[in-house]
Amino acid sequence: MTRIPFDEHRGFVRSLLAPLGARPTEHIALEDALGRITASPVESAIDLPPFRNSQMDGFAVRAADVAEAPVVLPVAGESAAAPGAPAPLAEGAAMRIMTGAPVPDGADAVVPVEDTEPAADGSVRVLRSRRPGEYVREAGTDLVAGADVLPAGIRLEPRHLAAAAAAGITRLVVRERVRVAVVSTGSELVAPGAELGPGELPDANGPALRAAVAACGAAVVHTARVRDDVERLRAELDAAVDAGAELILTSGGVSQGAYEVVRELIEPLGAWVGSVAMQPGGPQAVGTHRGVPLIGFPGNPVSAQLSFALFVAPSLRAIAALPAARTERMPLAGAVRSVAGKRQFLRGRRTPEGLAEVVGGPGSHLVAALAASELLIVIPDDAEALDAGEQVDTVFL
Amino acid sequence: MTRIPFDEHRGFVRSLLAPLGARPTEHIALEDALGRITASPVESAIDLPPFRNSQMDGFAVRAADVAEAPVVLPVAGESAAAPGAPAPLAEGAAMRIMTGAPVPDGADAVVPVEDTEPAADGSVRVLRSRRPGEYVREAGTDLVAGADVLPAGIRLEPRHLAAAAAAGITRLVVRERVRVAVVSTGSELVAPGAELGPGELPDANGPALRAAVAACGAAVVHTARVRDDVERLRAELDAAVDAGAELILTSGGVSQGAYEVVRELIEPLGAWVGSVAMQPGGPQAVGTHRGVPLIGFPGNPVSAQLSFALFVAPSLRAIAALPAARTERMPLAGAVRSVAGKRQFLRGRRTPEGLAEVVGGPGSHLVAALAASELLIVIPDDAEALDAGEQVDTVFL
Repeated sequence: MTRIPFDEHRGFVRSLLAPLGARPTEHIALEDALGRITASPVESAIDLPPFRNSQMDGFAVRAADVAEAPVVLPVAGESAAAPGAPAPLAEGAAMRIMTGAPVPDGADAVVPVEDTEPAADGSVRVLRSRRPGEYVREAGTDLVAGADVLPAGIRLEPRHLAAAAAAGITRLVVRERVRVAVVSTGSELVAPGAELGPGELPDANGPALRAAVAACGAAVVHTARVRDDVERLRAELDAAVDAGAELILTSGGVSQGAYEVVRELIEPLGAWVGSVAMQPGGPQAVGTHRGVPLIGFPGNPVSAQLSFALFVAPSLRAIAALPAARTERMPLAGAVRSVAGKRQFLRGRRTPEGLAEVVGGPGSHLVAALAASELLIVIPDDAEALDAGEQVDTVFL
Repeated sequence: MTRIPFDEHRGFVRSLLAPLGARPTEHIALEDALGRITASPVESAIDLPPFRNSQMDGFAVRAADVAEAPVVLPVAGESAAAPGAPAPLAEGAAMRIMTGAPVPDGADAVVPVEDTEPAADGSVRVLRSRRPGEYVREAGTDLVAGADVLPAGIRLEPRHLAAAAAAGITRLVVRERVRVAVVSTGSELVAPGAELGPGELPDANGPALRAAVAACGAAVVHTARVRDDVERLRAELDAAVDAGAELILTSGGVSQGAYEVVRELIEPLGAWVGSVAMQPGGPQAVGTHRGVPLIGFPGNPVSAQLSFALFVAPSLRAIAALPAARTERMPLAGAVRSVAGKRQFLRGRRTPEGLAEVVGGPGSHLVAALAASELLIVIPDDAEALDAGEQVDTVFL
C-alpha cells in the first residue's frame, strides 16, 4: 500500500479535474438562468432606451418656444407610457407627457410639471425655459443595440437578469454544468428510512454527496447504490458514462479489507488506490472509467463529506464561479492531540471569542458532530499535540 | 402627495412583513431538502451506530483470551460489512473482522490487523493484549434513537443531510417557503425578446423580481404582466391571492402621472401610495389586497431591483435563515454630488484599493450599470456633496 501526503493527493485530484474547466456551452431561457455562468458577452438586442423618452412627468415642448418663459402654450394631446407613437408636436404647442413616455417628433425638451401651472382654456403656463435636450433621454444613450450588456464569465444574479431582460434578451449562452455521477458501494447499505436488518446501515453518502454536488453548481446525472459485486459496480459505472457523466464519485470500497469493490475494479486498470496521510479520510482512489475521471472516497459519511469538501469541491466551485471556502487562522480554544505524519481535520466551530473549538471527537464516525460543526480545524502533518491558544488554520464548511 | 423618510418606509414594510416570519411547516423528502430550514429538531430514527461494530480491520476476540499475548488463536470465520449477523465467536477463537462490520456475540475487543501475524494452519498470532471494549463501537454510543441529530431553525447543508440520512431519516419537517406573486404593470410592456413596436419596452421586472424572490429562498406562486387597466390588475391580484400568495410585489403604476394603475386600485382602499425620500426609487406603495400584503415598486428596473433589495429582501432572507446583505464602510474613490433631503443609493464597486467607486451615473434608467455593480454606495439624506476619501456606508448586492 502506498501512502501519499495530503497536498500531493489534492494536487493529483485537481490535475485530473482541470480539463473539466473547459466547459461546453448551451442556450437556456432567461427564466432558468439564475446562478448560471455567462459563456460569452451578452449583446443588447435593442437600443437602450429603445426610443426617445421623457425623464419626467411634464410637458414636451420645443425649447425655442419656451426661451422667453414664462409663456403660455396650448396643450395639444398627451404622450403616455403605452404602445404607439404620439402625434408630432404642433408648432407653438406643448404636449402633456409621462415619465418614460415617447417624446413626440418636433419636441426637443421636457418641462417638468413642477415648473408649470395650468392656464386658461386648458393651456399651460411654462415658468422656466429649458435647453434643447433637457429631460429627454435619446434612444441608445445607455447602450446601443449590439453593445455588451453583460460580460462573459459572470454568475448570473437577479440584477444581471434585469439588465438582460431590459436589453430584449430571452435566451442566454451559458456554460454547461459539470455532469456528475454519485455511486455508493457497500452490501450493508440500504435506502435511508428502510427498516434495518442486522448489519445494515442507511446509505447516507448517496443523498449527502448529491446535495454537495448540487451546492457546488454541478448537476447530478446518475446515482446508484451497489452491493459489493465488481460486475454490478462496473455496470453502474457504465451507466454513469452512458448518462453523460464527466466525473464519477464513489464512496466505500477503497480500503485494505476484503470486499473492496472499487479497488478490485479499478486498480487492475491502473488506478491509484491507496492511503492519504490524513485523518479522517485516509483511504482514497483516483482513476478513470472508460476515460471518465473517477474519485473514490471512503464509505464513512464524515470521511466522504470531508474528502469531497477538500479535494473535489474547490475545482467544482471554481468552474461554477462560486467563491472558494472561507479560510481563517485563529487560536485553538483548547489543547488537541494528533497523530504525527497525518494531517488531521477536526470538526469545530468558532466561539464568540473567535477561538477554534473542537465539536465532538476525532472519530470519523461522528456524523452528528459534523452536522453541528461550521468549520474544519487543520492540524499540521507533523504535530502530535497543540496547546490552547496556538494558531491553527480553519476551513469553513 | 406625502413624502416620508427612507428609514420610516423601511420600518413600515418590515412591520407589514413581520407576520410572515411565523411559518407553517411541511413534510418534504430528504432529497429535496437542501437549503430548506428545519422547523423542529430532527430526532434520530435509529441508534448510531445501529449495531456494535469494529473500528478497525483485524480480529474480534475475547479480551481475556489475549491477556497473555503473544498468543495463537484459531480463526473461526469472518465478519464483513454486509447484511446479516455473524455467528457467535467460539470460545478461545478469533474472528476476522472488517472496519464497520458487526462484532460477533461473545467477542468484546478487536485486535487491529497490524498487531497480529498469520500463524500455522490458518490461525492468528495476537501480539498485543487488548482491554475489553477496545476498538469496539457500541450501538447508540454516538446517538441513541430519539435523540436530536439536528436542531430546529437551521438551513440544511449537505453535511446536515448526511447526518439525517445516517440517522435513518427520509422526510423532514421544514418551514414552508414564503409564497410570493410578482405582477408587472404598464401598457408599454411586452415579453422580453418580443418585437418592439413604437413606445414598447421589454418587461424586465417580471423575470428579475422572480429571480430576486427565488434568491431570497421564497417561492414565486403567481406572475403576471398587466396593462394599465384597473379591472385587469384587480383580476390578477385576485388570482395571486387564489394561488396562495402571502405577499404581492408589483412594479409600475405608483407615481404621480396619469394611468397609475396600482395607485388607482389600492389607494381608495386605504393603501399608502406616495414618495420616499430616496433616489432612485422614490415612488412606492404599501397596502394589502384581500388581506395579503402588497408592496408596490416603481416601474423602472433599477428602481424596482433596489427597492426589493432595500425593503423586502432583508425580511425574506431572515425568514429563510440566509445571511443579511454584507455592509461595509469605506472611503469614496471620487467626489459625488447628491440631492439634499433624499437618501441616494449610487451603484458602485470596491476598487482593489478598497475605495467605493461609482459605476455609471445616478440615473435610475442605467440598468446595465446596475448589472456591472457589486454594491450600493449610500449617500446620507442631508448630504449635497461628498469629497473623495470621505467614509460612506455600502451595501453589497
